[in-house]
Amino acid sequence: MNYSIIRYILGWVLLFESGFMAMPCVVGAIYQEKSGFSFLITALACLVVGFLLTRWKPKNMVYFAREGFVIVALSWIVMSAFGAVPFVLTGEIPNFVDAMFETISGFTTTGASILTDVEALSHASLFWRSFTHWIGGMGVLVFLLAVLPLTGGYNMHLMKAESPGPSVGKLVPKVRDTAKILYIIYFVMTIIEIIFLLFAKMPLFDALTTSFGTAGTGGFGIKNSSIGDYSVAIQVIVTVFMILFGVNFNAYYILLLGKNKKNVFKMEEVRWYLGIILVCILIIAFNIKSIFGSFGVAFQQSSFQVASIITTTGFSTADFDVWPQLSRTILVVIMFIGACAGSTGGGIKVSRVIILLKTVKQEMGYFIHPRSVKVIKMDDKAIEKDTVRSVSAFMVTYVIIFGFSMFILAFDNLDMVTNFTSIAATLNNIGPGLELVGPTGNFSVFSPLAKCVLIFDMLAGRLELYPLLLLFTPSVWKKN
Amino acid sequence: MNYSIIRYILGWVLLFESGFMAMPCVVGAIYQEKSGFSFLITALACLVVGFLLTRWKPKNMVYFAREGFVIVALSWIVMSAFGAVPFVLTGEIPNFVDAMFETISGFTTTGASILTDVEALSHASLFWRSFTHWIGGMGVLVFLLAVLPLTGGYNMHLMKAESPGPSVGKLVPKVRDTAKILYIIYFVMTIIEIIFLLFAKMPLFDALTTSFGTAGTGGFGIKNSSIGDYSVAIQVIVTVFMILFGVNFNAYYILLLGKNKKNVFKMEEVRWYLGIILVCILIIAFNIKSIFGSFGVAFQQSSFQVASIITTTGFSTADFDVWPQLSRTILVVIMFIGACAGSTGGGIKVSRVIILLKTVKQEMGYFIHPRSVKVIKMDDKAIEKDTVRSVSAFMVTYVIIFGFSMFILAFDNLDMVTNFTSIAATLNNIGPGLELVGPTGNFSVFSPLAKCVLIFDMLAGRLELYPLLLLFTPSVWKKN
Repeated sequence: MNYSIIRYILGWVLLFESGFMAMPCVVGAIYQEKSGFSFLITALACLVVGFLLTRWKPKNMVYFAREGFVIVALSWIVMSAFGAVPFVLTGEIPNFVDAMFETISGFTTTGASILTDVEALSHASLFWRSFTHWIGGMGVLVFLLAVLPLTGGYNMHLMKAESPGPSVGKLVPKVRDTAKILYIIYFVMTIIEIIFLLFAKMPLFDALTTSFGTAGTGGFGIKNSSIGDYSVAIQVIVTVFMILFGVNFNAYYILLLGKNKKNVFKMEEVRWYLGIILVCILIIAFNIKSIFGSFGVAFQQSSFQVASIITTTGFSTADFDVWPQLSRTILVVIMFIGACAGSTGGGIKVSRVIILLKTVKQEMGYFIHPRSVKVIKMDDKAIEKDTVRSVSAFMVTYVIIFGFSMFILAFDNLDMVTNFTSIAATLNNIGPGLELVGPTGNFSVFSPLAKCVLIFDMLAGRLELYPLLLLFTPSVWKKN
Repeated sequence: MNYSIIRYILGWVLLFESGFMAMPCVVGAIYQEKSGFSFLITALACLVVGFLLTRWKPKNMVYFAREGFVIVALSWIVMSAFGAVPFVLTGEIPNFVDAMFETISGFTTTGASILTDVEALSHASLFWRSFTHWIGGMGVLVFLLAVLPLTGGYNMHLMKAESPGPSVGKLVPKVRDTAKILYIIYFVMTIIEIIFLLFAKMPLFDALTTSFGTAGTGGFGIKNSSIGDYSVAIQVIVTVFMILFGVNFNAYYILLLGKNKKNVFKMEEVRWYLGIILVCILIIAFNIKSIFGSFGVAFQQSSFQVASIITTTGFSTADFDVWPQLSRTILVVIMFIGACAGSTGGGIKVSRVIILLKTVKQEMGYFIHPRSVKVIKMDDKAIEKDTVRSVSAFMVTYVIIFGFSMFILAFDNLDMVTNFTSIAATLNNIGPGLELVGPTGNFSVFSPLAKCVLIFDMLAGRLELYPLLLLFTPSVWKKN
C-alpha cells in the first residue's frame, strides 16, 4: 500500500473542495447572510489541511487498483466530513451525524434529506447543498484527473472506481482527456438547462440550484414542495433534462465528436433505457388518470416521476405515495434499475440489467444444450467473461448489503415499507422512498444508527459497492 | 425432443398418483365420508389415463437434459391438475383455480392456503392435502426412479431437475440406489416423528398429517390455529423434526452408512444452517420476551417459528405478524435463505448463500489483486466454475421472477408488504407471509390472475426456477 500517494491525493481533494466552497461564500455575501462566514472558515480549513497534505510530493507516484479504490472511498468520506462542517457551524443542522447525512446525500447525488423545513435554510447553505450534487454527479476525482497533471499513477484506477457502470471505457486514449471531455459535456449541458429554466421565468438562484440537482441526478430541492409549485413549463424542462443526464455520456461524445454518429442509435443500453421509461410512463399515466382528471396531466405527472426515479434524481411534483399500488410498485422496481452506466445517475444501471437478463438467457441455453459455448454480446460486441462474472457478483453483493441494512433498520421498529424503500432510495441514490420517507416525509424519523447505515448505503451506492467494502478488508491495508 | 419418453414417464407418474390417492380413499372409508368417492373416481381416472400413456413403451428410451427438465415440469403440473380434481368433486373447493392453488401449494410443500376454514374439510381431503406435502417433499420422480427400472435414460437428469440444491451428487454410483436410500431415510424419519407425536398424546390422524407436513417441510395444518393449540411437548417435537428435515440428507447417509462419520461435522452447509438457526432464535427470543412474559416461552415460540420459516415449512404457533419489526424482518430474511440443499426444504438454500458470500469475497479479492487466480472452496473441495456461475445466474433469475411477480400482484392494489411477503412465501415454498397473508390470514384475498402468478412461483420455487422457465422457451420444443 502506497500511503504517501493516498495522503497526497486526499490533500488535493481538499484543496479542490476549498475552491468549490468559495461559491457558497459568494452567495452568502450577495445575500448578506452570516452563514457565509461558516463556509469561509471551512473553506480556509480545507485550504490549510490540503496545503499541508500536498506539501510533500510522494517519492513513489506509482499506485495500483488497491490504492485507487482506497483513495476514492476515503476522498468521498473526507470531502463529506469537511462539507458537513458549515451546516453545523451555521447551526442550521446542529447534529453532526445529521449534517453528514445531508452532505453525503448531496455528494452521492441521493437527495435524501433529514430536514423537515428546507426553506428555513440560508441561501448559502441551499446553494452548497445543491452544488454538492453537481460535484458528486460526475465525481470529484474525475474532476481532479481532468485538471491535475498526475503522472506515474494508473489513473484509470481512480476513474474506474468513481465512474458508474460495469465496464468503464476511455473515450480517448488518455485518461486525462477523457475526464476533460466528460466534464465539458457535463458543464455545457448544465448551462443549457439553466438558460432554458431562465427562459421559463425561473429565478436565477432557483435555476442554478435546480440545474445542479438535475445534472447530478441529485434531487435536493430548495422548496418544501420540491418542484411541485413551479410552472408546468419548468416541470417539463426538468423532466427532459433528468432523462438527458441519465443517458450514457458516451452517446453525447459520439454525437459531438464521433466519426460514425449513427452508432448512437445502435447503443443497446440507451435504447433499453428510453424504452423502459416510455413503457413505465404510459402504464402509470393510465393508472393515475382518475387522480388527475385528464390523461394529459396524468401523463405529465407520470413522466416527471418516472424520469425522476429511474434517473435516481428524486425530485417530486406529486405525492406518488398515495398513487395506486401498481404505480407505486413500478416506481419501486425502476428505483433498482436506475440510469445508464456512464451517466450521473445511480441504481444498478440499465447495462447491468441487460447483462443480467442475458446471463439468465445464457444459463437457460446451458440447460437445453449443456455442451454449447455461449458468449454474451452487447452492441454486437462480446462482453468479456470477467465483466459478466463481475456483474453477477455486483448483484449478489448488492442483495447482501440490502439484507444487512434491512436487519439494522428493523431495530427502529418502523414499518417494513419505510425500511425497504429507504434502503432502496439510498443505495440507489434516489432520495425519497415510500410511507414515512415518501415525497412528503423525510429521513429525520430514523435513529442515529439507522442513519449511519443509510449513509453507508448512499456511499456504497454511489461508488458501486466495492471501494467502500474494501475499506473494511484488513488485507487492503497491508504494506507492500 | 423425445416426445415418446415424456408421454411414457408422465403415464407412470399418473399411475403412481393413482396409488397415492388410494390412501385418502381408505381414510374416507374409515370415517365413512362421501368425499372418499371423489378420491376413488379421480384415482380411477389417473389409473386409466396412466395405463393408456404407458401402454406403448417408447422405441427410443434415450433422453437428455432438455427432456429431463420438461418431464419434471410437466409431471408436476399434470400431477397437480389431477390432484386438484377431488377438491372440486367434493365441492370443498369448488373453484378449479383455487383447487389448483391448494394442490400445488401441497405438492410444492409451500403450505399456502386459500381456505378460510380448514376444519370444515373432510378427513379424506385433509389427509390428501397433507399427503401431497409428503409426496412433493422428496419428489415424485425421485420416487419413480427408486421404484421403476428405467433403463437407457440419463436418469440423473430427472434427479437433478427435481432435487434441490446447486449441485446434486449421487450418494452411490447408481441413481436408482441413491433414490432408494433417500426415500428410505425419509420414510423412517417420518415414522419416527409419528411415533414421537403419538407418545406426546397426539391423535393418530393428527400425528400422521402433521408428520407429513413436517417431513415435506410443507406446513398445511388440519386446524385453523395450525399447531398453536397443541401441547408444548408436541410443538417442541415438531420444532426438532422441522430442523432435522431441513438438513442435507447426505448428512444422514454419512451418519448411517458412511465410512468416516466424523465428516458430518465438517459439512460446512450443515454448520452454517444450524448456526443461523441458533442466532436467529436467540435474537428473536430476546426481542419478543416482553410479549410472552418469560424468556423460556419466548425461546420456545421463537425456535418454533424460526425452524418453521427457515426450513420453509410454514407451521405456526403464534401470530408473528404482530411481533416487533426486528423479529418480522429476521423472519423475512430467513424466508429467503431457506434450508440445506438436498433436504426437503425450499428457499435459496444455505449452500447457495455460502457460495454467493464466497463469490463476493472472491470478487473483492480481484479488486485487491487483479491478476490472482482464486478458487471457491466448500468442505475443503474446490467448487467447479460452472457451479459458481450457475449459482449467480440462479440468484439473478430469482430476483427477476420476484420483480415480475411484484408487478403483476400490484394490479390487485393490496398493500406492498402483503405482495412482497406472499411472493417470498410462495417462491420459497414457505406458506404464510405477513399482513393479509400472515399466520391468521390466507391467500383467498388475491384475484385469479395473482393466484396464477403465485402458482407459478410455487412451482418455480420447488423446481428451482429453470425447469418451469424452459417450458416457455420455444427452442426446447424443437424436434431433434
